[in-house]
Order: sequence, then C-alpha cells, then structure tokens
Amino acid sequence: MTFELTKEYLEEIEKAVEAHDEKYLRAAMEELYPADISSILYELDTEPAHYLFSLLTTEIGAEILANIDEDDRRRFLQDFSSVEIARYIEVFDSDDAVDLLKEQPIQIREEVIGLLQDREQARFIIDLLPYDEDVAGGLMQKELVKANANWTVNECIEEIRKQAEDVEKVYAVYVVDDEQTLLGLISLKNLVLARKNTKIGNIFDEDIHYVETYRPVEEVTEIMQRYDLEAIPVVNVQKRLLGRITIDDILDVVTEKAEEDIQAISGITGEVEEDDSLWDQVKARLPWLIVGVIGSLMAATVIRFFEGELTKIAALAMFIPIMGSTGGNVGIQTASLIVQALADKTGLEISWKERLLKIVAIASLNGLIIGILAGVYVLIFSETQLFWVVSLSLLAVVLLASFMGTVTPLILNRFGINPAVASGPFITTANDLVGIGTYFMIAHFLLKI
Amino acid sequence: MTFELTKEYLEEIEKAVEAHDEKYLRAAMEELYPADISSILYELDTEPAHYLFSLLTTEIGAEILANIDEDDRRRFLQDFSSVEIARYIEVFDSDDAVDLLKEQPIQIREEVIGLLQDREQARFIIDLLPYDEDVAGGLMQKELVKANANWTVNECIEEIRKQAEDVEKVYAVYVVDDEQTLLGLISLKNLVLARKNTKIGNIFDEDIHYVETYRPVEEVTEIMQRYDLEAIPVVNVQKRLLGRITIDDILDVVTEKAEEDIQAISGITGEVEEDDSLWDQVKARLPWLIVGVIGSLMAATVIRFFEGELTKIAALAMFIPIMGSTGGNVGIQTASLIVQALADKTGLEISWKERLLKIVAIASLNGLIIGILAGVYVLIFSETQLFWVVSLSLLAVVLLASFMGTVTPLILNRFGINPAVASGPFITTANDLVGIGTYFMIAHFLLKI
Repeated sequence: MTFELTKEYLEEIEKAVEAHDEKYLRAAMEELYPADISSILYELDTEPAHYLFSLLTTEIGAEILANIDEDDRRRFLQDFSSVEIARYIEVFDSDDAVDLLKEQPIQIREEVIGLLQDREQARFIIDLLPYDEDVAGGLMQKELVKANANWTVNECIEEIRKQAEDVEKVYAVYVVDDEQTLLGLISLKNLVLARKNTKIGNIFDEDIHYVETYRPVEEVTEIMQRYDLEAIPVVNVQKRLLGRITIDDILDVVTEKAEEDIQAISGITGEVEEDDSLWDQVKARLPWLIVGVIGSLMAATVIRFFEGELTKIAALAMFIPIMGSTGGNVGIQTASLIVQALADKTGLEISWKERLLKIVAIASLNGLIIGILAGVYVLIFSETQLFWVVSLSLLAVVLLASFMGTVTPLILNRFGINPAVASGPFITTANDLVGIGTYFMIAHFLLKI
Repeated sequence: MTFELTKEYLEEIEKAVEAHDEKYLRAAMEELYPADISSILYELDTEPAHYLFSLLTTEIGAEILANIDEDDRRRFLQDFSSVEIARYIEVFDSDDAVDLLKEQPIQIREEVIGLLQDREQARFIIDLLPYDEDVAGGLMQKELVKANANWTVNECIEEIRKQAEDVEKVYAVYVVDDEQTLLGLISLKNLVLARKNTKIGNIFDEDIHYVETYRPVEEVTEIMQRYDLEAIPVVNVQKRLLGRITIDDILDVVTEKAEEDIQAISGITGEVEEDDSLWDQVKARLPWLIVGVIGSLMAATVIRFFEGELTKIAALAMFIPIMGSTGGNVGIQTASLIVQALADKTGLEISWKERLLKIVAIASLNGLIIGILAGVYVLIFSETQLFWVVSLSLLAVVLLASFMGTVTPLILNRFGINPAVASGPFITTANDLVGIGTYFMIAHFLLKI
C-alpha cells in the first residue's frame, strides 16, 4: 500500500513520456495518489515533467501543486500562463490558493484572480491576501461549514451536502447568529447522533476555543496542541467568523519550524536542501562560515598580541583549542535550553535572579570538574607552572560562555529574531574569541611575563 | 479565552489550598480546561498539588495525567496507591493508559490492571502492552468505531452512539468483515450525508491507507503527513483491524523528535529542561563537555608534538583557532543537510558517486574562498612564509570536515542511532582535532623546520 518509487518503474515512466504514450501514462497515474505522482515529477527533467503533469486531471494537478515546496512550485509554474494557473486555482482550497498566488509576480496574481470563474473563490482569495504569513489570518482557509443557531439538524446536514465538495474535512459545524458572529460549534459526531428536527441552538457547544486573525502562528500552534484541537475557528475583533485553521496546516508549521531551528543552529541560511544546486548550497553556507573565519582571525589577532609570552612558553599554545571549544560547547548547551524554555512557555517565568543564580551554579560545577580534569593533564604532560592558568581560565570560560548563552537568545527573542540562531556559529565564534582572550589575560597576569 | 496564569491568580489559589477551601477551589477549577489546571499544578509544591488534584473529578484528573510529561507524571504518582491509579486508568484512552503503566514498576502495573472494573479496558491494555514505543503498535489506541460491511447506515450510527463516550474523536468508521479484516472506511462526513437504510457495503471507501503494527513510528508519521490523514487504522499481518493512530499523537511525535534532534546537536543528553534540578542539568551536560575536553586535550598533545616548530615560529599559534572552528562549522553544516535528507526521503536516493562529487565541489569552492580570505590576513598581519601553510590547510580542513560531516550521520543512521548526534559536540571535537593536526603537518612539510 505504501508507494515505493523504484528505479525500474521510473525508467518505464520516462520511456513512456518520451514516446508520448498518453494512454499508458494516464492509466498509470490514475492508480497513484497525488503525493506519489509528485515524487515522480521530482525525478523528471522540466520538459517531461510538464508533459506528464498536463495529462493529469485538474483536481489531481491542483492537489500536487498545493503540496509541493514553495521554491519548486515557483520554478515549475514559470512557463505557465495565467489562464493555466487559474484553472488549478479554481479548485484549490483558499489558503493554498493564496500561498501560491503570493509567490507569483503581482501582475500574474491579479490576472489569475480576474480569470476565476468561481466568484466565491475569487472573493475568498481577495479576503485572505492582506494577511501576513505569520498570523492566524495568513494560515486560515475560508472553506468551512457554518449553520445558523435557528436551523434544525436537518437543515444543517443539507448545508453540509451543499458544501461537501468544497470542504473536504468538516470536523465540526460552526454556529453563528444572523450577523455571522461565532456562537459555538457542533461536532460532526454529535450531529450524527442528534435527532433530525432538533434546533441547532439547543445542542451546540458554546464553550469553544477560537483565535483572532492577528494572533501569531506560534500562539495558534500552542493553543491547538494544548487543547488537542483538529480545527480552530478564526474571527475578527468583533468575533465575526472569518475562517478556520486545520491541524494538517499546524503539523506543517511545526515541521517547518523544527527544520528552521536546526538550520539556524547549524549555520545554514535560507531553506536549502541537500539536493539543491551547487551554487544554492555555497550561498547558504558561506555567510556563516565567513563569520566564523572573521571571528577566528580576531582570535589570531589576540594571540599575536601575546606573541611575546608564546615565544617564552611555547606550551601555552597547547591549550588554545580547549579554551575555544569549551566556550563554544557550553554556550550552545546553555542557549539551547533557553531557546527550549522560550518555546515551551509552560507556567510562570521564574525570576531573573533565580535563573542567573542557577546558571552560575551549574556553570561553576561544570567548570570546576573540567578545570580539574585539564589541570591533571597539565601536571602530567605539560609545564606545572601552567596548572593554575589552565584551570582558572577554564572556570572563567565556562562562566562567561554560560552567561552569553543565556543572554543572547533572550535578546534575539526580544528583537523578534529566531532565538535558535543563538546556538549557531555566531555564538560559537564569539565564545571562541572570549575564551582565548580570557586565557591569555589570565596567563599574562599569573605568569607575570 | 486563552488562559494566562497570572501571579495574582496563583497566589489566590495557593491561599485557598492552604485554607483547604474546597468549595472555592472546586468552583475555580470547574471554569478551567484540564491543560490550564496542569499549569497551576506545575507551580504548586508536591503536597498542595496533590490536595488540589484530589478535588478534581476522575475525568479531569485523568485528562491531566494523560497529557503531562512522562517524568513529571512518574514523580507525581509516586505516592498514589494502585487503587487510586486504577481509578484514573479506568477512563484513560487505551494508548495513554499503556504509556502511564509502562512507567510504573511491574508490580504496580499488574495490580492496576487487576483492579480495573472495565473488562474491555483491561483487555485493551493487555493487548497493547507488548508493543515497543517506536512502532505503530506502540502508538495506536484500541478505541475506534467499526462497522460490519453488512450493516446499514442506521446500524452504524447506533454503534457510534454506543461508543460515543469511549471514542472522543471519530473521524471515520472502519469497515470490517466477520473476521475483523479491514475492508475500508466511511468518513463521518459521508455517513452524515448517506441515506439511513443504505448498506455500508455499498458506500464505503476501499482505497485507504493503513499500517501494520510493526511499522516504525517515523514511517507512520511520513505516511500521515504525505497523505494528509487525521487517523490511520493499524492492522496485523493478516490485515485484522487492531487499532488506530490519530493525528494528535503524530503531532506529539514530531514535536518530541524536533526537541530530541536539537538536544543531540547541542550536546545535551537525555530530556532535560531549563527548569530541571541543578544536578539533572549538570548530568545532562557534563558527558559531552568531557568528550570535548578529551578531544581538545588530544589536540593539545598534537600541538606539544610540534613545540619545536612553535618555538621557532610563534606566529604559527595564531591560526590554531581558525583551523579548529572552520572544521567544526563545516562539519556541522554538512551533517545537518545529510540528516535532513535522511529524514525527508523524497524520491530516489541520488547515487553515492554523485553525492560525493557534489560535496567535494561545494567544499572546494568554500575552502578556496575561506583560504584566500585568511591568506590575505596572513600577508597583512602575519609572516608571509605562512601564506601557503594557512591557505592550503584551510582548503584541506574544509574538505576533510565535509567528508566526515557526510559519512558520520550515514554511519550512525545505519546503526540505528539518531543521526542528528553527528551535528553535535562529538563531530565538532573530531573536526577540531583533525583540523589542527592537518595544519601542523602541512606547516611541518612546507616550512621544513
């Protein structure tokens, strides 16, 4: 049942595409789910992919377009006319339609909207266009089933029948008054169980969760996860029902956010993937590498400043790596925990004083253990006069790195930057630099050279 | 509508708990959702938390217990008798019940199962206990609505009515034959729209997705995300319907996996949080810090080996940091992209040869740019004789780190270890070491000292 794209099958398809064997291809594609056809399209070159795509029904084509990556979609649609795009947009869910149109140049966007036959769809899209991607309004779809509180269960079911094609997943019917104010909802399950002539007003659930259009996406995600919701209605400030957000969109948001965080930590800019072009990958990696290089060259300058000490005691150079890497490792650990705490937001924030005290305590303990370990190494393998220099420096480096690992994500968060960046190369580089500087300063004062 | 736990409100609750003001507390808790009561319990000390919890209804208490963190739950239940635990297990969903019981000592687990009044629930739990956490069987719940293909729509609705209390979210009715073999499903929406006396056998959807109990959780997640499913039925090898997995569990899996990956990258072992105890945090951080220290001390030993060179050209020490940090940064970037590619599994794998060629090309380009940058620095601020040493070393380091960043996650993945670990301190340390070693070797040969 799970589709596996084998090399043999792909070659068969490629041959059929080359031979323009419409009949075979149509039959083969009919057996597959849209997501599986996507996998095949990804493996084909542009022209064969376009040909195969043109053989699909509008519905299947639309479903594929709605679910592929933003960048891939933009590239794929480059040679499509506005008329062709409009054909697919016609059957899109409104939220996906807006996502696609926002990727297009404004002229094509307007053309496509003008070409839509389905006036309701056009209106839905125009309603949704103004919202930012990162608020509830930018995630909602207009497709939903709503019922007036005065209706009976039977009228409600008739409404679902009318909407059945447009609203793929119903979950619940939203109950509104004559001004479209959201009053509550009735779950599909309860609708199935209710008697046909019962008034909706008598059986719906008033105590429900909803969000306003301006709520940040993270807040919506948190609410839906916290209260285990499959869908949440979106209202304006007057509590007028405007749309709904479904769980599959939230799952996408969570997955994307995780990828973003990991890329931020790993020092990769932009959403790059392993199979992207050479140039895209270099572009995504080089900026942070250069930040690292600049930081390290600053460290080189610090070391140059202490060249006199180094000439006298060459063994000092042995502990340059441990200062840099310990600083980096401690900084990342601390920053990660803070980033996680910022994301969780469980309960009350503990006070600043408590948090700092605890961080200092943890750092002291870790620093002490590491300092002693390295100190033992110094006594056995290096010059004993360096014992205090290395041990004390390590303690200082762990304390400083913990402090920076705590403060940086909090500052980034305050300025609306993804705090996960604080676990990335910038903080590592900064900690490298601070670590090495601290080490040589301590060496300078303790050894009096 | 969104609950915010303020300091004032918490203090009020604390005072009421101290005064054992049952009436006030019961009324206050009745207004809150279970998830919000959880937030309050988290802020209270053990004894007041237990007292407040004891005032809740069994249903609310069960919902809270089902949704809190594993560690917190174990701690919270420490003083609970088997009878008390059984009272809550009675109303749990079967999958949550099994999760909770698996955290308990085997004696308590057996006692609780023996105490259950609901024989069906006991049977469900016994059925689910054998499955590992990381396969479909370990994630499924037994609660679902199924119908025989011979039934009418009306009989089907009667079955939902019977099950209504046990199955909170229905989504679909699964259709089985007399041997309980899964034949297909009928969505709740279509059930609402169908005529009452239609045979289920005539209207259900045969072409559906399902998974076998032994499928890894990652595969289940991928299928549900790929095909946008809210629930997936789980069968045994004979295609007998055993349970189902719902989307909210998948969302939890995805969230947890992301947290795990980030902790692995950041060099934190175990699931530790910023508000955990001092000792837990030290324990979670120290192992990887020590790995880093050992690596750095090995680097120190390498440097000691070249002390002769350093005494002659002290400026060599200046570029120790850049070798270490560039190796680390490049290694993490490469490993992250490989980890992501392993997780995505989109389409066919590109061949090994292609992949390696591309990695070499990207690394060469990045290495060249970084090498030139650092070379310019050498010419201006350091000794010109080091130009080729530094530039060539950087190129070599970038190439080596890219290679290690590619190979390590692939090897880890092969051995069933989370490949995200490869972006963590281990690989950074290894790259540090390799970088510094390469640098001094090249210096030794080029400078002939």
